[in-house]
Amino acid sequence: MRVQIALEEKGVPYQYVEEENLFHNKSPLLLQMNPVHKKVPVLIHNGNPVCESLIILQYLDDVWNQKYTLFSHDSYERAKARFWVNFFDNKIADCGRRMWASKGQDQEAAKEEFIESLKLLEGELGESPYFGGEKFGVLDVALIPFSCRFYTYEMFCKFKIEKECPKLMEWVKRCNHRESVSKILPDPYKIYSFVLHFKKMLGID
Amino acid sequence: MRVQIALEEKGVPYQYVEEENLFHNKSPLLLQMNPVHKKVPVLIHNGNPVCESLIILQYLDDVWNQKYTLFSHDSYERAKARFWVNFFDNKIADCGRRMWASKGQDQEAAKEEFIESLKLLEGELGESPYFGGEKFGVLDVALIPFSCRFYTYEMFCKFKIEKECPKLMEWVKRCNHRESVSKILPDPYKIYSFVLHFKKMLGID
Repeated sequence: MRVQIALEEKGVPYQYVEEENLFHNKSPLLLQMNPVHKKVPVLIHNGNPVCESLIILQYLDDVWNQKYTLFSHDSYERAKARFWVNFFDNKIADCGRRMWASKGQDQEAAKEEFIESLKLLEGELGESPYFGGEKFGVLDVALIPFSCRFYTYEMFCKFKIEKECPKLMEWVKRCNHRESVSKILPDPYKIYSFVLHFKKMLGID
Repeated sequence: MRVQIALEEKGVPYQYVEEENLFHNKSPLLLQMNPVHKKVPVLIHNGNPVCESLIILQYLDDVWNQKYTLFSHDSYERAKARFWVNFFDNKIADCGRRMWASKGQDQEAAKEEFIESLKLLEGELGESPYFGGEKFGVLDVALIPFSCRFYTYEMFCKFKIEKECPKLMEWVKRCNHRESVSKILPDPYKIYSFVLHFKKMLGID
């Protein structure tokens, strides 16, 4: 989703190829293009594979930088954006999984950690409309796909993100007014019903 | 070590501040400069903290790029270098820990995975003198500090990296001829004796 939103924002035409069965039967194209990790996303450009979403976002900015850049022109702002993308990928994404896959004390601990992390992000947003300041930047692109899982977390953990982080939720709504975002992000209710189904499949109750 | 080697290569003067007691008593400066993760390395430039080694390397290239750049000028080469740094940070570094901290089957599995991963890296090196081609580049800087742990792994797991990956070991020797590297990397024997001591401290035998 990060890659698609970035391509939409940049107005770069692309062909989206869905990996039909990522769990049991990876496509020959995926195995050929990302033999090391065998994971999506992979951007194929001029026949060359570029793997991993943040690396792809940087590549997109390197190659298509005329109309709009995801990264700031300021070196320090770029470093900060990379820091917070890593913070999200290493910390918050893991909390999210534990919020639907565990229960009892573990689930409660994951929820507390999640809220604390979101508050750090909210602090980073400050009073700006976007993490990129006035501009919808790389951190906005990297974080917004995650918001379509909020409903799922709220249902499993019985809390309201809006109550904990009102400014972050305003940011979510602001981003969702952008065509690039509303066009790409899936319906939060569908995510919830998928996770319910997935939990059953894994035998987690 | 990555940051120091990069600063040496770029000829940027810096002051190295050792974090004396990273386990039990972090310094007020570290807590102030990296309040989120409370981890080293942190580069402080114009009073601004830049955290995490790969982010710092990118920042160094953004700010000091006149004499020598770590990253290639080619977008695709840059993407590939980032991919392999992540591969190392997420996969090989973890194997390394398991090679000294575990034993029996777990240790054997870690060793097999480690060798397989090193062979992938060796394949990426190919016939070039450096991962950056003719140039000592970002992937060289990111990987070489790791080589001073090779002796430790060999002692704990009873194998010879040179036998498994002869070209990679030639690369290690080539890098060690550079002043930036030989000046910064610690003695492999000291690392081994530190790990022995550390294992005792943790009560792992």
